[in-house]
Amino acid sequence: MNDFSYITPTRYIFGHGAEEKVGKQAVVNGMSNVLLVYGKGSVVRSGLLDRVKAALADAGVSYVELGGVQPNPTDDKVYEGINLGRKEHVDGVIAVGGGSAIDTAKAIAGGILYDGDFWDFYAGKAIVEEALPIGVVLTIPAAGSEGSGNSVITSHDGKKISLRTDMSLRPKFSCLNPELTFTLPPYQTACGICDMMIHIFERYFSPTSGVEVTDRVAEGLIMAIMTEAPKVMSSPVDYEARANIMWSGTLAHNGLCGTGRAEDWTSHFMEHEVSALYPEVAHGAGLAVMVPAWMSYVAKRNPAKVAQFARRVLGVTEADDLRAANNGIERLREFFTSLGLPASLTSLGVKASDIPVMVRRLHENKGAVIGAYVPLVAQDTTAIYESAL
Amino acid sequence: MNDFSYITPTRYIFGHGAEEKVGKQAVVNGMSNVLLVYGKGSVVRSGLLDRVKAALADAGVSYVELGGVQPNPTDDKVYEGINLGRKEHVDGVIAVGGGSAIDTAKAIAGGILYDGDFWDFYAGKAIVEEALPIGVVLTIPAAGSEGSGNSVITSHDGKKISLRTDMSLRPKFSCLNPELTFTLPPYQTACGICDMMIHIFERYFSPTSGVEVTDRVAEGLIMAIMTEAPKVMSSPVDYEARANIMWSGTLAHNGLCGTGRAEDWTSHFMEHEVSALYPEVAHGAGLAVMVPAWMSYVAKRNPAKVAQFARRVLGVTEADDLRAANNGIERLREFFTSLGLPASLTSLGVKASDIPVMVRRLHENKGAVIGAYVPLVAQDTTAIYESAL
Repeated sequence: MNDFSYITPTRYIFGHGAEEKVGKQAVVNGMSNVLLVYGKGSVVRSGLLDRVKAALADAGVSYVELGGVQPNPTDDKVYEGINLGRKEHVDGVIAVGGGSAIDTAKAIAGGILYDGDFWDFYAGKAIVEEALPIGVVLTIPAAGSEGSGNSVITSHDGKKISLRTDMSLRPKFSCLNPELTFTLPPYQTACGICDMMIHIFERYFSPTSGVEVTDRVAEGLIMAIMTEAPKVMSSPVDYEARANIMWSGTLAHNGLCGTGRAEDWTSHFMEHEVSALYPEVAHGAGLAVMVPAWMSYVAKRNPAKVAQFARRVLGVTEADDLRAANNGIERLREFFTSLGLPASLTSLGVKASDIPVMVRRLHENKGAVIGAYVPLVAQDTTAIYESAL
Repeated sequence: MNDFSYITPTRYIFGHGAEEKVGKQAVVNGMSNVLLVYGKGSVVRSGLLDRVKAALADAGVSYVELGGVQPNPTDDKVYEGINLGRKEHVDGVIAVGGGSAIDTAKAIAGGILYDGDFWDFYAGKAIVEEALPIGVVLTIPAAGSEGSGNSVITSHDGKKISLRTDMSLRPKFSCLNPELTFTLPPYQTACGICDMMIHIFERYFSPTSGVEVTDRVAEGLIMAIMTEAPKVMSSPVDYEARANIMWSGTLAHNGLCGTGRAEDWTSHFMEHEVSALYPEVAHGAGLAVMVPAWMSYVAKRNPAKVAQFARRVLGVTEADDLRAANNGIERLREFFTSLGLPASLTSLGVKASDIPVMVRRLHENKGAVIGAYVPLVAQDTTAIYESAL
């Protein structure tokens, strides 16, 4: 087990009507005039935004609005939010939505208090020392941004750039009402489930040994997600199942499963290059393809942990590690397919001729050698993309 | 799943030399002159206290000392600490030790800022609105107080009274160095392992349904503890095993496993009456006896969750719930015995003639009906104590 320093200071308000607590939580966290960040469409149409505004008004908290955040959020909305927030002297940022709204809110919360360009944080040129307090009303369990200190923003030239902070960009509070997820379309629900599972994988498939406790917690979370996922797919208004998925999505990415070990985000990074080039590809859908492809490739060199996963989580009984690993990967593929997720890049519209571009960008962004569970060079990542076609 | 509000804002500094960070963490958390709370003997003899003092001095933090905290800590040390802390104008309290030192530090940190008697908090007459910041250097993985908002203090007339706060008494930081636990005597190690397992049980054996995610996390933690426990017993300086046990002890009691469900602390309360009457009985040893006795009794009325535990955690394959439950309880007893823990109250020196006293006190303290998984009256708790003899 590696040494670590870990803090997760977000207050989770979980359950029925959680969004109605947003006003009180804003006040408790020192907010009196907030920037409300949201996407477009559903949060407005559903009446959620109006309920959030009413809760803020009831608590005496004023607000200005930044709507229209897009999936794979871009820097233009961040700049717009920083300018608006400064002009209106906001003292807090509240996101209403999923990962895109939350990640944008985080970039704004850090950027408003920073003299330079907010991209400095994402480029590793500056550390987010302070940020306005951030609140969340979550509508999509997937990205886990409601409990993390992370944010992913896409630049003008199509690069998805991740920022990870220790504490400064962790929300002060997150309101999680499973009922708000009843109306999520099935494909989006499935993509979210895949995304949260892979947030756990990226920590679980680690070269660090002696981490039985976080292994078992990670395996437990995956098992819970795999038990509850078919329920939400077949019965979208099953409160308990939605609640289990929602809370799993937060625990998947608040850092708990990563304590004490090296992580390996290779398949996430490989997917980022797919959806950067093909913006219509949902992150979770791209992951459903890339992760089994990555697992198959790395299992050949280092099957042990994949075999452990196959045995403990998927009930594989095969004694040989590589065979157990491959059986498990097959079951995982079947699970993703059963949720309606794609099994190949081709089915997502990705062309073989674009693989060299994705490989080039991947290694430009992340270095010549990427990965910890199995370090990979361009030859390897090319083979993985090709196997995923 | 029940609605919940949950926050765990403690920074965990985990690993080699974690105690050396105590000075920096004190400063980060606004401390400049702290009350150092510790027991007697081992933290002094081992040189740990000197290292902590040096780390504080290096960071420019001054300190006054309150040593001599006893196991099952009593209110006299709390009053002494409150008086000393006020006189010396301390702005933080740092515990060096296990649950007794930490629980005492918490009572002091809340009491110093409170005009009335600190017992008001424990008697439910007042809520801890504010407290001095609390820091921890942990030496005994067991009580989980390093990550909880809870504190247990024993009154002059021998009552162990628990206080649970939402956030105000949660430590700001806890330094967890597994090496500090290498020298724990085997019996104390075993008692700690039992204590942390039962912190999970008290949340797991709940009447609340629809909590697959926290069930799986709880089961994972128990499995990890049961895997690592024999290693630390046979090889006390096994760093990885000690690290897994230490981190498990924190996660067992920081509230994670209780999110979204009713808890049932009956067996803890029943043990408290044992060790209140027989102060020489270690809490974990008393639990090793009381918990299987409690489980056997409640399984007759409600076997389902005990059977789930037996099957998922202990590998029991029996189809009938009650039989599965009983098989599991038998395996659990064997596990505790294998650690050198007692299997009966008699072996702890408890007399049958004291059962009526313990039952009377139990229900005086906790009400005529106690428990959530299976509600119990005096007739039931009498039968459980008798079965544990």
